[in-house]
Amino acid sequence: MKGEPYLFLPGPTPVPERVARAMNRPMINHRGEEFKGILEDVIAGIKQIYRTNANLLIYPASGTGGLEAAVVNFISPGDKVLAISIGVFGDRFANIAKTFGAEVEKMDFPWGTGADPQKIKERLDQDRNHEIKAVLITQNETSTGAYNDVKSVREAMGDHPALLMVDAVSGLAAIDLRMDEWKLDVVISGSQKAFMIPPGLSFMAFSDRACQVYQSNTNAKFYWDLAEGLKYQQKGQTPFTPPISLYYGLHEALRIMAEEGLDNVIARHTAYRNLVRASVSAMGLKLLTEDRYASSAVTSVIAPPEIGANPIRKYMLDQFNIILAGGQQSLDNVVFRIGHLGYIRELDLLAVLAALEITLVHFDFPLEMGAGLKIAQKAILNMHQQ
Amino acid sequence: MKGEPYLFLPGPTPVPERVARAMNRPMINHRGEEFKGILEDVIAGIKQIYRTNANLLIYPASGTGGLEAAVVNFISPGDKVLAISIGVFGDRFANIAKTFGAEVEKMDFPWGTGADPQKIKERLDQDRNHEIKAVLITQNETSTGAYNDVKSVREAMGDHPALLMVDAVSGLAAIDLRMDEWKLDVVISGSQKAFMIPPGLSFMAFSDRACQVYQSNTNAKFYWDLAEGLKYQQKGQTPFTPPISLYYGLHEALRIMAEEGLDNVIARHTAYRNLVRASVSAMGLKLLTEDRYASSAVTSVIAPPEIGANPIRKYMLDQFNIILAGGQQSLDNVVFRIGHLGYIRELDLLAVLAALEITLVHFDFPLEMGAGLKIAQKAILNMHQQ
Repeated sequence: MKGEPYLFLPGPTPVPERVARAMNRPMINHRGEEFKGILEDVIAGIKQIYRTNANLLIYPASGTGGLEAAVVNFISPGDKVLAISIGVFGDRFANIAKTFGAEVEKMDFPWGTGADPQKIKERLDQDRNHEIKAVLITQNETSTGAYNDVKSVREAMGDHPALLMVDAVSGLAAIDLRMDEWKLDVVISGSQKAFMIPPGLSFMAFSDRACQVYQSNTNAKFYWDLAEGLKYQQKGQTPFTPPISLYYGLHEALRIMAEEGLDNVIARHTAYRNLVRASVSAMGLKLLTEDRYASSAVTSVIAPPEIGANPIRKYMLDQFNIILAGGQQSLDNVVFRIGHLGYIRELDLLAVLAALEITLVHFDFPLEMGAGLKIAQKAILNMHQQ
Repeated sequence: MKGEPYLFLPGPTPVPERVARAMNRPMINHRGEEFKGILEDVIAGIKQIYRTNANLLIYPASGTGGLEAAVVNFISPGDKVLAISIGVFGDRFANIAKTFGAEVEKMDFPWGTGADPQKIKERLDQDRNHEIKAVLITQNETSTGAYNDVKSVREAMGDHPALLMVDAVSGLAAIDLRMDEWKLDVVISGSQKAFMIPPGLSFMAFSDRACQVYQSNTNAKFYWDLAEGLKYQQKGQTPFTPPISLYYGLHEALRIMAEEGLDNVIARHTAYRNLVRASVSAMGLKLLTEDRYASSAVTSVIAPPEIGANPIRKYMLDQFNIILAGGQQSLDNVVFRIGHLGYIRELDLLAVLAALEITLVHFDFPLEMGAGLKIAQKAILNMHQQ
């Protein structure tokens, strides 16, 4: 029996039963006292995850909506923007800025690597007149499974006044991020990743410095306008009807995260990354990213070229109802991606790794069954003996 | 015992248990075959409700997001726009157009009435050079409980080439609307109204004529860009991660609507409107709108001035857990609004009307208990004897 699917995507991620039950409550008045309490709780809870005291808004939107909100609130048409890209989502952030009239300078790094802070420093050092108004960066590049060292990038910026705007949609709570301590200006995230709830909400926090930039922003904006959001937030409301059931889920998910503790949540994601990488390597497969760039949210595995990544994904879906992500654009059929983000248990990881071994043997890949799995088992035993 | 709340808002509306259960399913891959099937089903289902064969997109957004999508796709900065307003939501549509650079000419009608098609005709007749590129109108004005006769407005436009863009967020499936037959160009709607699912999705259908206008549109757009939406829809996908649980709910809600039949859904809303208005009038209360403008989605009741609308709402909330909407802006404390939209059963209406009588007697309003209720009971008996 295949039963319910095993979801190993880097979003949407599995929703815990507690969250699903919490979402399954009747609608309430979104301009009433009960919703006000929920809104205040979840804003406070998300700020803890962001490690920030800055203002934070929740949009009824996909993560991309949050990126658009960041662009239209803090970048004006004609502004020069340095857009760091290490993959599809870095390109997307740059494209949104370009769409809204920014003069975008792309700084690309090879797919599978993270950005080199030194190169960013050199570029900003050249910008003596401070023409660059914002630096855009992706914390975790979902398309490759590499991440950017946002802290070092911030340090590399020195006292250059450009805003640092971070797409943390798929990385937040899986990879360490400290908005206030690291002096990040704008941080965007989404609900369907480490927050363990279905897609449909995005979050945007912004520093006082970003708020000042907003004051002179000339972009047309209505749905994303942060002033409206803040005005209603003071009343315990949102400008437009909020996705109430997702708020219920978020409320419960933040409780679960608080029970585990943010440090433990991040340590768990790091341990999962290490475990998956060691196990897959022991199977004789190659990884797209080097250890130093490796994401704690998702791992890109290079498929044996004689098999191809997509046949592996198809077999695992057909035989085991396991859903893995494919490669995007130039990585299509080259890599498959194992998401280990959000509500993933140790035994889920053992299951996917065991099934991967069966799949490889099915395709006559030279592998002794258990070669990778036992690495994972030992890692888990170690975790339990600590 | 007060128990669960009775929700009589014009959105969010109560979610049927079948829909809540349907939403309570595990996440799936939004780029996979199962989601593709759901997307195709719900697009086809919503088109039936719109009575259209036009293109239709689903946005991960509140209804206001759908309005913004309509503006940025079909109105260019500098375009002259005639914005008909009969209340708060008509004003909002106009404001969005203004925000994105349209030259907006407001045509206001008194709150509680609908627009006069003759006045619209006269204005468009003056526009010999066809400078007006779009007419914006609200089908159902939630803030007052009046509706616009969209069909007559369309007829009044004659062969003027302006696009007719209809905010049908709160009226669709409660009040008759025939997109193709009436030649409407853009129709926007939302999930949390007659569609009986929680907030978080908005829908936008657009005619071929609107599509042509889009081709030369100069507004900056990314999240709302219809070309991206259509491109992904052909693959059975959405450009950005969709709110999967809301799609599950929508899928089930459309089945429920199909079982009842669209004509019956609309007839039910009309019958509820008539019943509520007759019953409340028999209690000795006044209605904000005349019969000819009266919405089938929500009824604004003028509170006895010596009591005020807000004390009535507060008493009903405190004593019976009944949630009514208040008046907005100049109508605050003047009216309360009874939503009878979406998943409202006859017995729910009897409950709210009975509680309203108790409340009025509590506040020493001269009323014989049952005076209004028996009107509603007789109306329901009539419905059952037909």
